[in-house]
Parts: sequence; structure tokens; C-alpha cells
Amino acid sequence: MEHEIRAFAPATVANFGPGFDVLGVALREPGDRVLIRRREGSGIELVSITGDGGRLPRDAASNTAGIAAAAVLKRAGVETRLEIEVEKGLPLGSGLGSSAASAAASAWAVNRLLGDPLGEVPLVEACLDAESAVSGRHADNVAAAILGGVVLVRSVDPLHVVRLPVPAGLALAVVTPEFELETRRARTVLPKEIALGSAVLNQANLAGLVAALHSGDLDLMSRCFEDRLATPFRAPLIPGAVAVMRAARHAGALGSGISGSGPTIFALCEGERAAARAAESMMDAFREAGHASSAAVSPISPVGAREEPES
Amino acid sequence: MEHEIRAFAPATVANFGPGFDVLGVALREPGDRVLIRRREGSGIELVSITGDGGRLPRDAASNTAGIAAAAVLKRAGVETRLEIEVEKGLPLGSGLGSSAASAAASAWAVNRLLGDPLGEVPLVEACLDAESAVSGRHADNVAAAILGGVVLVRSVDPLHVVRLPVPAGLALAVVTPEFELETRRARTVLPKEIALGSAVLNQANLAGLVAALHSGDLDLMSRCFEDRLATPFRAPLIPGAVAVMRAARHAGALGSGISGSGPTIFALCEGERAAARAAESMMDAFREAGHASSAAVSPISPVGAREEPES
Repeated sequence: MEHEIRAFAPATVANFGPGFDVLGVALREPGDRVLIRRREGSGIELVSITGDGGRLPRDAASNTAGIAAAAVLKRAGVETRLEIEVEKGLPLGSGLGSSAASAAASAWAVNRLLGDPLGEVPLVEACLDAESAVSGRHADNVAAAILGGVVLVRSVDPLHVVRLPVPAGLALAVVTPEFELETRRARTVLPKEIALGSAVLNQANLAGLVAALHSGDLDLMSRCFEDRLATPFRAPLIPGAVAVMRAARHAGALGSGISGSGPTIFALCEGERAAARAAESMMDAFREAGHASSAAVSPISPVGAREEPES
Repeated sequence: MEHEIRAFAPATVANFGPGFDVLGVALREPGDRVLIRRREGSGIELVSITGDGGRLPRDAASNTAGIAAAAVLKRAGVETRLEIEVEKGLPLGSGLGSSAASAAASAWAVNRLLGDPLGEVPLVEACLDAESAVSGRHADNVAAAILGGVVLVRSVDPLHVVRLPVPAGLALAVVTPEFELETRRARTVLPKEIALGSAVLNQANLAGLVAALHSGDLDLMSRCFEDRLATPFRAPLIPGAVAVMRAARHAGALGSGISGSGPTIFALCEGERAAARAAESMMDAFREAGHASSAAVSPISPVGAREEPES
């Protein structure tokens, strides 16, 4: 049995296209890294966190890496001592699944240290415990961070996740403006009820998008990407959002939307070159709206949380 | 060029599973038949209608067969005289797409008489003109009646229909109680707005159902079949509906729901034998609720409207 392991879990785009609360997608990079040591005894210690500017709680019971680790131990019925080092590669409050990535890397690492007692679904459930504690009970980030690829969260309670196929060569551009948006605020702007007609149009798009993922029909994918459940209400919270999404489309993206609860805007593209072009246009649009931004380009990764060789 | 043709279009189940207003499915039988003659001159005459108990309008401009025929002529830019005989095989107001079947058989036949000037999408649009005139602007019945199989109406205006794959061997039981339900009444009970959470759960099911149609995962199909948009509101209009749907499930159906706007209840089953068993249980349940009913069992048909050899 290993006594120390390094693991990585990637950034994820939740609320992918018309899949509000149900579709999540994994990037290859960036992501969060953990180093976890198992020792005799009990208790979870968060030894260090780097890359967060000192903003995350150092208490293991309040940090998603610590909560997820505890949830894995509990589900596996194991008592042991864990020392966790977290290296944040994802900005906080950006809509790229930062809390989910820390949880997924930590849960995956602890499970491996224990000899993989938990299957994938219980592992996602452990991460969901952590996610629920900090940003709401939705599983599209954590499921994608553990499983990789494109995942459909068919049900949260009980958890039922369906992996969807991903046509080869798809890439994402994610562009994060230099301001934060609190997840809770992004939640409060959502209406409690929506027009039945909007629900129908939205589910028609989602159905088309799922069909396109299966068939590889990129034209269909492009036609089905509009979201009516969350985007119209959240876009006004993000200065320039509409212009940025339009810029992505004009630059050739198959689709664009708010990543998670924002403020990151993502674009789905045919290949990394196209994604890089879209990212440039999107940064320009944010700049015109008065905000500097940073961008990343990544293929959709078929793999989620994974062991990280020592660098 | 032919001057006379017989055509058939099948019954269809609209609002298939969680696909309110967007998913339609074609049966092989029963359906409506038309005989159409082309002559010199102009004007459309509805020569005869049988099987409707004298209840349908005899005026070609008020009957879906006549309206659809006129719409095909108009789209094709052809002026000619048409004489139409309609043989109704479908009960009216039953939720089996009776108006759509007459429109589809007629539109298909006229298009063939003209040498097939219209492709499939304009042909569905011609039928949609007829459907809009009598039962509302939804395309899930007419698209399935023309195209066969399982169709996703991604958008009505402009019309965008996506064919979905159908795993081999699936069959439908359709059980029609002996009372009618006016489509308009079934529409008025629908709420104008629904809870955002219901929309999310519903679209998650629809996404799972589409994935299951692609992958052939019948267990997934079965888990994704519940509708939250229309069924909870319409079931109370149909005495016994909940018990009938439950009976279908208990008899082994993969799923069950209200066909179109009802009162027919359908069940999706693995094969015709299973569908026949489900139909028996469903008829029993209707009887217990005080209503006689009639049932039909059919495979999902990959073909919609088609030429009918003279019998």
C-alpha cells in the first residue's frame, strides 16, 4: 500500500450549453494538485495550501479537499491519519469548478491510498458532500472532475451519472475576467419558475446536443447550444458577457456560454487552434467591456482525476 | 406521372416520455389511408371520408387532409385539381395523432403525384400547416408520421427535425379508453410556468433518453422515462391514468405515459409480446376505473408515410 500520493483534478465547465445543472465537461489543464500522506493515527490535517493567496480556509473540515477526504474515509469505513497539501491551479470563484477540482483530486488520492475501495459513483458522491458544503448541491462539476469527458448528471439524489461520448478533436477556450462573481449571488438571480415554452425549447436543444455528441454532427451541436434556463439571467451580472459570447461565435466557435456560474466564459471549438483564436477574440471583447482577462485552451479530456507523477 | 395513388400514414405518439412537444414516435399500424386522384383543372375536393362516423368536416379547407394537400401544391408551385378520399383508421381525439396521420398521408400522396418536388422537411412543414389549423402548432406528430421512427423536433419555427436512432425490437402498446379528451382542454390545464427545478429534472431525463436511444441501453431508457412538464397536470383529466401507467410498468414496460394530449396511454416495451402483456394489464386498469378501452400493439416503425398497394 502506498503511503504518499500526488494527484491532479482538472478544471470543469458546468452548465455546458443548454445543460444547466446537468452537463459537465472536463478540461485537461489547468487544475488543482494535492499531495496526500497517510500515517498512523486519525484526523485530517491540511498541511498547506498554495496558490490561493491565503483566502481558503485552512481548517480541513471547511475546505473541500479536507471534506472530500473525510467523506472517502467514512464511506470506505477506514480510520487513518491524512496530511494534505493543496496546490491551487484554479482561480477561486471563477466558474471553472475550483472547489470541485480540489475535492476530486483529494478524494481520488485518498481512495487510491486506501487501495481503491470506492467505485466511481461513490467517489463522486464523496466529492458532492464537499461541493454541497461550499457551493450548492450540484454534481456537474465534481462528476466531470472525477470521470473526465462530458457527463450527464441524470439525478443528484440518488446520484446517477451518464458518460456521454465526445467527438474527437473538440477543444475549449475558457476566458476569465479579472473580477469574481459569488456563486451564491449567481444563484439568487435565477428565477424560481420559468415559462413552460422556455423549458421546452431548452430541453429540445439539450436533446439535440446529446444526439450530436453521439453522432459527431458538429453542425447540429452548433445549432443546439443556446441555453434559456440560466444564461439570460446571469449574463447581466458579467459585464461584456453577451459581447464575449458573440465574439466567440464570430471567431468560429461551435458554441459559447457562461462556465458554471461565471464569470468565466467558455467556447467550444473544433480543435485547439480554433479555440486559441476564439480566446483572443473573447479577451478583446472583455477588454472593450473594461476588463482584463486571462485565457486557457484545452482539449476536452477523456480522463478526470488522475495520479500526478512527481515533477 | 401517376394520376392516382393510395397512401398510408401511421398513428404517432407525441410527447414521448419526457419529450413534451419535442419527441414523436411512429407506429406501424393503425393509421389513416387516402386515395388521391389528380385531374386537369384546379381546386381540391374531399370526395369521401369513411371511418369517422360523419364527424369530420367535409370541406377540404377545414380538413387536415385537404389543408395539407393544398399546402403541398402551394409549396411546389403547382396548380391542379385533386380529389381526395380519406379512410380514417384512427379514432378522433384519442391522442394518437389522428389529424396528423390524415395530413401526412395526404401530403405524402400529393407530393408523389407531383413527382416528389418537396423534400422531407417541406413535406413536414405542409403537414404542420394542417396541424396548426386544427390542434395547435406542434410538429411531433406530423414529423413522426412523415419520417417514421423517433423524431426530435428541435425547433418548430424554423422547422428543424432530428431523426434519432431506435434500438431494434422496441414495441408500443397504445390503450384508448372509450371517452374523448379535447386537445384544447388538455392544453388549458398546462401551467404557463413551471418550477426551474422541474425543468432541470425533466431535461436531465430527456437527455438520458436520447443517450439511451443512441446507445441501446434499455435500463437507462427505463430510468429516464418520467415526464414532469405535462403528465402531472393532464393525468387528472383521464380517469385511471395513473393506475394504467403503473400497470404498464408492473407488466414490465420500460416506460409509460400519456400519448399526445390523451386519453390514450402508451407503454414502451421490449418486443410485441411484452407490449401485448402490458396492453392487457392497462385495459384491466382502465376497466377498474370504470372505462372500457381498446388496445393496439405495434413495433416502432422506421418508416412513416408510404405508398399503399391496392388491397
